[in-house]
Amino acid sequence: MIKRKKTKQIFVGNVPIGGNADIAVQSMCNTPTWDVEKTVNQIKELEAAGCEIIRVAVPDKKSADALKEIKQNISIPLIADIHFDYRLALAAIENGVDALRINPGNIGKEDFIRQVVEAARKKHIPIRIGVNSGSLEKEFSHLGKVDAMVASALKNVSILEKYDFDMIKISLKASDVLTTIEAYEKISEKTDYPLHVGITEAGTLKSGLIKSSIGIGALLLKGIGDTIRVSLTAPPKEEVFAAYELLKSLQLRHRGVNLISCPTCGRTKINLIELAHKVEEIVASVDKPLTIAVMGCPVNGPGEAKGADLGIAGGIGEGYIFKKGEIIKKVPEQQLLEEFKKELSSMI
Amino acid sequence: MIKRKKTKQIFVGNVPIGGNADIAVQSMCNTPTWDVEKTVNQIKELEAAGCEIIRVAVPDKKSADALKEIKQNISIPLIADIHFDYRLALAAIENGVDALRINPGNIGKEDFIRQVVEAARKKHIPIRIGVNSGSLEKEFSHLGKVDAMVASALKNVSILEKYDFDMIKISLKASDVLTTIEAYEKISEKTDYPLHVGITEAGTLKSGLIKSSIGIGALLLKGIGDTIRVSLTAPPKEEVFAAYELLKSLQLRHRGVNLISCPTCGRTKINLIELAHKVEEIVASVDKPLTIAVMGCPVNGPGEAKGADLGIAGGIGEGYIFKKGEIIKKVPEQQLLEEFKKELSSMI
Repeated sequence: MIKRKKTKQIFVGNVPIGGNADIAVQSMCNTPTWDVEKTVNQIKELEAAGCEIIRVAVPDKKSADALKEIKQNISIPLIADIHFDYRLALAAIENGVDALRINPGNIGKEDFIRQVVEAARKKHIPIRIGVNSGSLEKEFSHLGKVDAMVASALKNVSILEKYDFDMIKISLKASDVLTTIEAYEKISEKTDYPLHVGITEAGTLKSGLIKSSIGIGALLLKGIGDTIRVSLTAPPKEEVFAAYELLKSLQLRHRGVNLISCPTCGRTKINLIELAHKVEEIVASVDKPLTIAVMGCPVNGPGEAKGADLGIAGGIGEGYIFKKGEIIKKVPEQQLLEEFKKELSSMI
Repeated sequence: MIKRKKTKQIFVGNVPIGGNADIAVQSMCNTPTWDVEKTVNQIKELEAAGCEIIRVAVPDKKSADALKEIKQNISIPLIADIHFDYRLALAAIENGVDALRINPGNIGKEDFIRQVVEAARKKHIPIRIGVNSGSLEKEFSHLGKVDAMVASALKNVSILEKYDFDMIKISLKASDVLTTIEAYEKISEKTDYPLHVGITEAGTLKSGLIKSSIGIGALLLKGIGDTIRVSLTAPPKEEVFAAYELLKSLQLRHRGVNLISCPTCGRTKINLIELAHKVEEIVASVDKPLTIAVMGCPVNGPGEAKGADLGIAGGIGEGYIFKKGEIIKKVPEQQLLEEFKKELSSMI
């Protein structure tokens, strides 16, 4: 089991981040925020997929204005992502968001920063400092990239602390996996604020899953990370799916089915890829934490997957249903999925 | 940079494994091995994708017989995967395979083991001991899973060493990520033989990429692993693609393009997902190690991706081509991909 670093706990709405809290799953909308209907629909879809916190971009006044109505129509906490403009931050707070992502160092005038911090404090709204390796302050350009990221985060932390504000969360994202891992390791040694972990600009679905899983996975294995976002150039619900797969693989969260399935090989006599995908569809809506196996052959399959609560092993023109390593039923291939569904229903 | 553990070097055909050698990418055919045409075609497709070593299942005599013709028609080293039957191992060696995967402890009689080892030694053919957590010897059932896997591997090593055979490679696969990581860490401390790393039965494409990337990634980050297979319930060329993405992310191999792309957000004015996928297709055949970026906005994009050799940033109805952070061209959206291709061609 992974031993997590204990960080200070903050709350984004009703979701605790850090301390002993579960690692929270978040995502970001890719709808125009001012389009309330589209944005609310996407958030509801993400909620259904298990998203626990949602972030939206607030690049302009009409987006900030839309936050009020969005907030009224969703159940999960809402974070406003703001660059530079303190007026947008004030409007977002006024409109009921549960947290901000804004770097105080980018706001400009002291008086503007103070206004944002005071407004956030009054409503108990935490602020995420989101350092991105691609847009670091010039003052840190003499440092290596990792040290510059850490220095930038700490500078922003100190600005907030100057105003006695400590509802802080930090992220330090780079598109490079090694840089990201090293930056989070360093900041984790220097601060106890909770960390939002992710690889930025990780790429399209497959490459993005790979980079995010290596980077976020390596950090979680070290006990680092209080909330995660898997950034993908893909529909946001893929980000939520991936986040849970990642957390389940590391036994940090238990939600729905852990599917194990053979790679295909020359021994397989059935269409295993198709079978595994059909089983994946069937179990997608199951919330109960179960391990389900789809194996290519009845000889090794049930034994190798004896940890599985329920499994299918393919034979020639027929298949086997097994539980905890024991074959309980032999059925013709055409009835395999039906029988599997029956067994599954009886377990949930 | 990752500091790799230095292991003993062996050769699978002309591919070095261990020592200072590059981490070799391998996959496994899912065609029936006795179907020479299908198997050779699949291997050629995998070769083109970058596969460096290919394994085939040899469950019966007709598969063993097919190895000779397969071997004559492919360029990369061929590994025969054999369970139990020493006669199949002898036939595979006779038919020119470059390596075996067989656990000597499963062969049975001492005399049978001796015959296989002598034949392998004579042709300089290494043997991979492939321990699988689902099929461990009963004698180790009193141990925890990880210790049982390590004990099984060491027992098999000692059988081979008894016959003065040291062209050994070891794998210790489990479908559970944490178990796999711990098992490889332990065996790596106890032996200097090169390690073949992978997560077995990792699942369908997306889940499998996630589990494999966490597990293989965590081990490679610790310097463990001399050759990898990403096991997926998916076409084997996905395994090869994933292996390179994984190795490139960790800067352990450099092959083709490293694509970085924004997650979409409410700020994006173009269809970024589609654009990124089109760029991914265009660069798929590029061998030169380049970093290419596809960014959602012209304001932050070029700066955030200033490490990219070439990039596209989307605007409203138009796009920007940039190199190393500097915009070099503004073009209408419809011409964006054409201009990108031109710039790419001039670089390769």
